Amino acid sequence: VSYADDLVERYRTTGDRGALARLVSLVERDAESFRLGRNIGETTNEEAGFVLGVTGSPGAGKSTLVDRLVANFRAAGDTVAVVAVDPSSPFSGGAILGDRVRMQRHTQDPGVYIRSLASHGHLGGLSVAVPEVVRLLGSLNFDWILVETVGVGQVEVEIAGEADGTLVVVNPGWGDSIQANKAGLMEVADIFVINKADRDGVRNTKRDLENMLELGGDSGCSIPIVETVSTEPRGIEELVTEIQAVRERLSRSGELDERRGDRRAREFSRVLDGIWRESLGEVGAVKEMRNAVKCGTRAPIEAAHSVMADVVVALQKRLEKE
Amino acid sequence: VSYADDLVERYRTTGDRGALARLVSLVERDAESFRLGRNIGETTNEEAGFVLGVTGSPGAGKSTLVDRLVANFRAAGDTVAVVAVDPSSPFSGGAILGDRVRMQRHTQDPGVYIRSLASHGHLGGLSVAVPEVVRLLGSLNFDWILVETVGVGQVEVEIAGEADGTLVVVNPGWGDSIQANKAGLMEVADIFVINKADRDGVRNTKRDLENMLELGGDSGCSIPIVETVSTEPRGIEELVTEIQAVRERLSRSGELDERRGDRRAREFSRVLDGIWRESLGEVGAVKEMRNAVKCGTRAPIEAAHSVMADVVVALQKRLEKE
Repeated sequence: VSYADDLVERYRTTGDRGALARLVSLVERDAESFRLGRNIGETTNEEAGFVLGVTGSPGAGKSTLVDRLVANFRAAGDTVAVVAVDPSSPFSGGAILGDRVRMQRHTQDPGVYIRSLASHGHLGGLSVAVPEVVRLLGSLNFDWILVETVGVGQVEVEIAGEADGTLVVVNPGWGDSIQANKAGLMEVADIFVINKADRDGVRNTKRDLENMLELGGDSGCSIPIVETVSTEPRGIEELVTEIQAVRERLSRSGELDERRGDRRAREFSRVLDGIWRESLGEVGAVKEMRNAVKCGTRAPIEAAHSVMADVVVALQKRLEKE
Repeated sequence: VSYADDLVERYRTTGDRGALARLVSLVERDAESFRLGRNIGETTNEEAGFVLGVTGSPGAGKSTLVDRLVANFRAAGDTVAVVAVDPSSPFSGGAILGDRVRMQRHTQDPGVYIRSLASHGHLGGLSVAVPEVVRLLGSLNFDWILVETVGVGQVEVEIAGEADGTLVVVNPGWGDSIQANKAGLMEVADIFVINKADRDGVRNTKRDLENMLELGGDSGCSIPIVETVSTEPRGIEELVTEIQAVRERLSRSGELDERRGDRRAREFSRVLDGIWRESLGEVGAVKEMRNAVKCGTRAPIEAAHSVMADVVVALQKRLEKE
């Protein structure tokens, strides 16, 4: 039995939090590990918890909102994992954790697990660790996995693609909803939350969102817009009701299975492309030839073909090691 | 001597337009061909003509502007190739050609070559044919290669990356410059053209552009903004003067060589990635395994590793054929 298997077993039987933390660290450090992938990868659609992405501009109040949702889900007896995805590099780390001090009241609750992850992998782009950790937590029978991202950008849209459903959090004021539109978040939102709804401009923001949804809208089902003041709290019950409704609708219609299937297929492709890019990086001839192409001493197409033999050898060596 | 070599030789010695047209078609159909890549790929930086990208919203008047530029360059004794990049699929084709009827006055001029190309390759994304045709035309001693794209989007920005210099064409009015900013065109512009400058709002548009350039501006050199009315024509002489100045500045500073080197290096990587994606597409096991992953019967990471042996065999077979 592998170390990972052992940790899974320990967490499942005794609820050992240390085992869970080490398991997540293992996945974060080496998500591509073949063995680990095989051991924790066999979650079927039906077993897994619901992954809810929470995204929006920095300062929109996502952390407080997540804290309120956790309390609400817990009060109903559900278990919750929170994955906070940081834009920081895997090595700078930690900066965002300070923001989550308020989450500490949940750390003593065995029904809650909270973890920060870096959004970028060592090859750039969305870290393969994020979807893999999310899948791990889903397979460990958390009822809800909340994935909170910081910022509005390409990575946030990609992470939304890794969720079963997505909350987009905006604040009253024109710029926020425009930015959400610009970043492509309108297309991934299952629910809009206008947080800090005690401020001026709520009605305008709601109208902006409705207009943009109408413009972009090929989907027949309307996207709910919920107003909250997470600090009071206000509107959280209504938000939870809408989240439950979205989960039920997605599950009943088969869309949940479809989203999860697409997600796994994307991950499959991402892993293959990662192997390719890593192998290219290992082959000295690729670097040399790229320089020659840059200097104009070799033609790009011909040069690319000329390194393929070395690249294939590198791929073969990699296969043999596994 | 290959068919491609023969065509190059015929065009170079006799200026045979039919040979040139067949050569471009050959590159368009099979840009990745190893032989062809080797034969036409040895252009050094110094020999090649200047590639000027012309981009901007549909209806901004790019075709008329290009037509005026062609006339101006020809009057100065320079030869010009025009590549019109269409957003249409390689198979629908032709729709945009109608727009270029006004270019017909140049078709009898042996110093002008005009060609439409589809922007998307058969694998999606920017067609590898576009940079390759541009490089071919540069190597055939056209003094200028004008690459006109239709629309404002990711592909346009990518095509701008394939040019030595880029004109971004906008019209008076707020939305146009905002859209250029949103699409990332501000970063690639070497010159802004406010075309249809006989309309209201020129001053505001100029101020908008200046503000956005200032906000985004890490570069020390200011980007010229030229007002034109291409239908009259007005401002074309000034525009040509600015284009010449940009060409000279880029050439003198060494930036032209650098841009061309980066471009070739990107093409090198794109060809390698293309070989990878094509090979994945050829392997039945990849398709089967992706389906299994989608249905949840196999785990993504493990499934990806399990097909690698077949993928390596496919790559090897490909190598042997070459």
